[in-house]
Amino acid sequence: MAFVDPNYLFPADPSVRTVARELYDAVGGLPIISPHGHTDPRWYAENAPFPDPAQLLIVPDHYIFRMLFSQGHRLEDFGVPTLDGTPVETDGRRIWRRFAKSYYLFRGTPTRAWLDYTLQTLFGLAEPLTPDNADGQYDRIAECLASEAFRPRALYERFNIEAIATTDGALDDLGSHEAIRASGWRGRVLPTYRPDAVVDPDFEGFAENLDRLGEVAGTDTGTWSGYLEAHRRRRAAFRALGATATDHGHPTADTANLGAAEASRLFDRVRAGRAEPGERALFRAQMLTEMARMSAEDGMVMQIHPGSLRNHSAPMFARFGRDKGFDIPTRTDYVRALQPLLDAVGTDPAATVVVFTLDETSYARELAPLAGVYPALRLGPAWWFHDSPEGMRRFREATTETAGFYNTVGFNDDTRAFPSIPARHDVARRVDCTFLARLVTEHRLREDEAHELAHDLAYGLAKKAYRL
Amino acid sequence: MAFVDPNYLFPADPSVRTVARELYDAVGGLPIISPHGHTDPRWYAENAPFPDPAQLLIVPDHYIFRMLFSQGHRLEDFGVPTLDGTPVETDGRRIWRRFAKSYYLFRGTPTRAWLDYTLQTLFGLAEPLTPDNADGQYDRIAECLASEAFRPRALYERFNIEAIATTDGALDDLGSHEAIRASGWRGRVLPTYRPDAVVDPDFEGFAENLDRLGEVAGTDTGTWSGYLEAHRRRRAAFRALGATATDHGHPTADTANLGAAEASRLFDRVRAGRAEPGERALFRAQMLTEMARMSAEDGMVMQIHPGSLRNHSAPMFARFGRDKGFDIPTRTDYVRALQPLLDAVGTDPAATVVVFTLDETSYARELAPLAGVYPALRLGPAWWFHDSPEGMRRFREATTETAGFYNTVGFNDDTRAFPSIPARHDVARRVDCTFLARLVTEHRLREDEAHELAHDLAYGLAKKAYRL
Amino acid sequence: MAFVDPNYLFPADPSVRTVARELYDAVGGLPIISPHGHTDPRWYAENAPFPDPAQLLIVPDHYIFRMLFSQGHRLEDFGVPTLDGTPVETDGRRIWRRFAKSYYLFRGTPTRAWLDYTLQTLFGLAEPLTPDNADGQYDRIAECLASEAFRPRALYERFNIEAIATTDGALDDLGSHEAIRASGWRGRVLPTYRPDAVVDPDFEGFAENLDRLGEVAGTDTGTWSGYLEAHRRRRAAFRALGATATDHGHPTADTANLGAAEASRLFDRVRAGRAEPGERALFRAQMLTEMARMSAEDGMVMQIHPGSLRNHSAPMFARFGRDKGFDIPTRTDYVRALQPLLDAVGTDPAATVVVFTLDETSYARELAPLAGVYPALRLGPAWWFHDSPEGMRRFREATTETAGFYNTVGFNDDTRAFPSIPARHDVARRVDCTFLARLVTEHRLREDEAHELAHDLAYGLAKKAYRL
Repeated sequence: MAFVDPNYLFPADPSVRTVARELYDAVGGLPIISPHGHTDPRWYAENAPFPDPAQLLIVPDHYIFRMLFSQGHRLEDFGVPTLDGTPVETDGRRIWRRFAKSYYLFRGTPTRAWLDYTLQTLFGLAEPLTPDNADGQYDRIAECLASEAFRPRALYERFNIEAIATTDGALDDLGSHEAIRASGWRGRVLPTYRPDAVVDPDFEGFAENLDRLGEVAGTDTGTWSGYLEAHRRRRAAFRALGATATDHGHPTADTANLGAAEASRLFDRVRAGRAEPGERALFRAQMLTEMARMSAEDGMVMQIHPGSLRNHSAPMFARFGRDKGFDIPTRTDYVRALQPLLDAVGTDPAATVVVFTLDETSYARELAPLAGVYPALRLGPAWWFHDSPEGMRRFREATTETAGFYNTVGFNDDTRAFPSIPARHDVARRVDCTFLARLVTEHRLREDEAHELAHDLAYGLAKKAYRL
Repeated sequence: MAFVDPNYLFPADPSVRTVARELYDAVGGLPIISPHGHTDPRWYAENAPFPDPAQLLIVPDHYIFRMLFSQGHRLEDFGVPTLDGTPVETDGRRIWRRFAKSYYLFRGTPTRAWLDYTLQTLFGLAEPLTPDNADGQYDRIAECLASEAFRPRALYERFNIEAIATTDGALDDLGSHEAIRASGWRGRVLPTYRPDAVVDPDFEGFAENLDRLGEVAGTDTGTWSGYLEAHRRRRAAFRALGATATDHGHPTADTANLGAAEASRLFDRVRAGRAEPGERALFRAQMLTEMARMSAEDGMVMQIHPGSLRNHSAPMFARFGRDKGFDIPTRTDYVRALQPLLDAVGTDPAATVVVFTLDETSYARELAPLAGVYPALRLGPAWWFHDSPEGMRRFREATTETAGFYNTVGFNDDTRAFPSIPARHDVARRVDCTFLARLVTEHRLREDEAHELAHDLAYGLAKKAYRL
Repeated sequence: MAFVDPNYLFPADPSVRTVARELYDAVGGLPIISPHGHTDPRWYAENAPFPDPAQLLIVPDHYIFRMLFSQGHRLEDFGVPTLDGTPVETDGRRIWRRFAKSYYLFRGTPTRAWLDYTLQTLFGLAEPLTPDNADGQYDRIAECLASEAFRPRALYERFNIEAIATTDGALDDLGSHEAIRASGWRGRVLPTYRPDAVVDPDFEGFAENLDRLGEVAGTDTGTWSGYLEAHRRRRAAFRALGATATDHGHPTADTANLGAAEASRLFDRVRAGRAEPGERALFRAQMLTEMARMSAEDGMVMQIHPGSLRNHSAPMFARFGRDKGFDIPTRTDYVRALQPLLDAVGTDPAATVVVFTLDETSYARELAPLAGVYPALRLGPAWWFHDSPEGMRRFREATTETAGFYNTVGFNDDTRAFPSIPARHDVARRVDCTFLARLVTEHRLREDEAHELAHDLAYGLAKKAYRL
């Protein structure tokens, strides 16, 4: 009754498929390491049922509603809330029916693959979503969600997750993470230190955020040294709850490595709100290097995600706010941008800096050559729009010959769509096994090596790189 | 006796080939929709015989003579006219013989594929062109061209063209288009509004062109509002003869969205010939947004073709003039460049803006993410140097996962080489069927979906996007 | 007993593999033309034994030690010498053992392929290197290297090299080349004119280099005309020893085409050490055009290698100096950069300019369109990090449709790793045969054409392009 084929994503050639399948059979069921993502820690802390099918699977997924919008649908009709409170559709069943009618738009996209996999594997549905079966599928999913077996902790266990990281602001009190620990539940949910709000002078409320950082950390963030100390203390507080990583979303990959006096003067101008745009950018750049230095000190893995132009559409931002599918990748240069950071800590194996990109032209030209020589540098997996079968294939084809496999860090699902996590890891495992199978059948790799690598790519590298 | 194999372009793997072939068998014979191209409307109006084989197939084809030139041949020997009237070869047979000797240079190029297909399918030749059979092939083609069955209208019908657009300047009197309509012939030949000469202040004779635009449109193009009204009227005149689209060749994708007063002041400086280079570029940018706004008003599909550096070689331009194979693609950024236009009309489903690129790095990074969210935006097919099997494959691989299939607009042949039109559409259909077959055999798409998509990519999407 | 499979690199599909294998069987054994590389001419002149296995195969290979360093190993432990003389590992066997333990890091890289091929084919080893067999393999290789059959001239003959070019500074006395000639040995080892030290004002000791150039050439390099004449004479001296090419490593592809008076004034400022950074860059740009003009005069093939940011890591440069794996590719533009040079000599078939790139985005967008029209321009093969199976495949896929095969120049090994030369040419031949086999099985090329092309790509094009 399966509609997702067991050979999903494996190439047609029988000999490549056979090898890919053998590799996958050995690693497809490994526990999930999810070292970077955006699920809500409250889910695991409170363990309340998830809402209706549409609110869970459609409304919060910007991959879904951006495609619907691109074909002339209104976001309001899919329940996306407006900033000014203008009413939007709240009836989950109607949203689900509308979605079913437009599901054909997703042909060829990873969204389609993730949802098919989830409907079949998680909700036990026997056929793909159509306008005709939409109501029945909605009922079935709603029934599931109401049951104990579909509560967050049960799903965590069912998904065979070994560890999952959330993303948490530097000012977050980490109450949910404490509650999870206190509950005695055996799930391993870890915070990740995301300090954008106290690192980026252009962030809303930056000055107040720094005041608050001082209070939370018990230091004086009115001085450069006190401010750095506050970061160190917050990092320690995150580590105390299991964190092993930090995460940094910046418009560019620019880094700087100012002398202490100069950095201190820059901080004073930024702190006083008197910094020019160029100085604010320089401060962000300097802070990446500071965070990299702290990575070498405390062992937390630093992740840099540059290159997205946020909120591209002014009218859509005004009506719906952030994260509505209007973050668009831009050309990103790494070679000169990362040089100051790499001069500071790049040759220190104690530091770990994982770099992601939305600009695939940098894979072979810049990132693989850099990661293939600097011990502190690792390549994050194909990310965001490139977290897809073709995107992952291009990543391996473009990076492996120069950086090898061992300067990459396995897969990140990077998602807030909890039910889709197994689907996403499954796609990554299938793509990697296919890539390895091609190398094997072309006699570029022995089969025993491919088995070892398949295990590393699916599990071992993420665990090792993120120290989990 | 065929030398073009029925399985041309299908992959060797038997299961992928079988699916690709089934898909192609169902759509290979569909009528041709040619919504963007450069055939001469006089051909259809006058229905006169085409000239000799070389003048038809070699002399006007810059893909052909640029390759010959790159290998040390003189353009003069292939009949390419000089600006100063220095004599060039006029003997079609000698040109054809010379070409036959160098035909091997085109191995691996689409030119070779198009010509082989045309020689076999249109002229009934049983073997590929060689120096030995060049004379015989020349005679056979010349004989064909002299017959009624090879007149333009007969070929239009034989090619199973359902609609074909030409490209016509804003000042064109559209006499040929009127004559076609008046003739009672059932062929559907439509003009396309190409206003570069009255939009680009750097165009030769721009000021006079605007005077003339005022006369033709019956408005005062001395004012910004009169100038915009002139465009509206010319667009209406084009629409009255069937036009559904406009076409815009710009050096970059830059757009602007000035306030009315500022735009009016800019126009005054441009109109008076007093604008600086930056202002002239800004005027071009502003006019793209104005044209997009008019697209939302009158429903004409706007096509933007940026990123070609025209006439790269000064000495060749001096001797031979424009369009001699020296237009070279350059890196082109879209994300910030299109933002003003998209802020103006990007979220309005009434507008349609089709964007083409010569910079493939923008497919996955910029264009697919933009077209995958803005309802007014669609992706034009792989264009120009990328109108080729590998180019089309890269286009689908790079855009589908983010923009889907339905934010693309099918195939454009974009050619003045009338006899090659079926060959070009055939290549596109074969490549798309191959791409779909890969998705089917990798279980990423069901076969029924692939059949629907094959039809859409070959026929339906072009018809719908261009409102034909 | 082979561990490198005879079908290495051929795709799994049986029909493609069969054709690829047939093509390869016909060309795999052709003599090697190596028109660009960095082997030491003293090797052939002195014909002394090579040093121990590690000093030959590991220590000088930056592909190897950069990967080891990237995974936390110290360069010192692999014998890489420090600038200040801090002792490093000198025991070849210990280096070899360490390398064997980390050999798995090279999975999926060309280094692995080259070394496996070399161990099997050259040293007759029956299994891949492992920590367990490291000592035995070391002994076997050391034994080989001590024998007459592994002296440089014997290897040259065993490798079936027909001609090999070295790279020699403009000030080099070419003594080794003279000695080779005088020795009566039949090997064809040719110098290549590499004038960076007397062309780039930022080169260490530039002023003294120019003094010395004047002495060596017997001209007054205090004047622009004397300086150009010195280049002409040195080129002639190189040609007298067989040179057919020049080589130019520049940070960018920028060229300039100043008038004689302006160029002369620029030279004066550069010569006097008073030039600003922009002027020094302009001088480098101007000299590329001068060298291209001399190519048209004397027929030497000009090679341009732009786009590497040298010595990316300041601390590593301070400790170990140049060429330690820290040269990182950067985005490189060619269209406007080459325009002055191409305006000067681009349409002259007497000139030959071979352009290489480290930025693959320029293949389809810029370089193929340029090489597909300018008779003086040819495309160098996939280079450096892209000298790899995937890199070569991307090169053919991206360039062939626009530039054809005949505007490319065959393979360059570009290496100082003498024992790896057959491995490198073998990879290139296999990749090209695979590409051709795909075209054949997709009916894009006839089998007879593919055989002709396989021969040209493996042998003929390099010989013709470099006039060897």
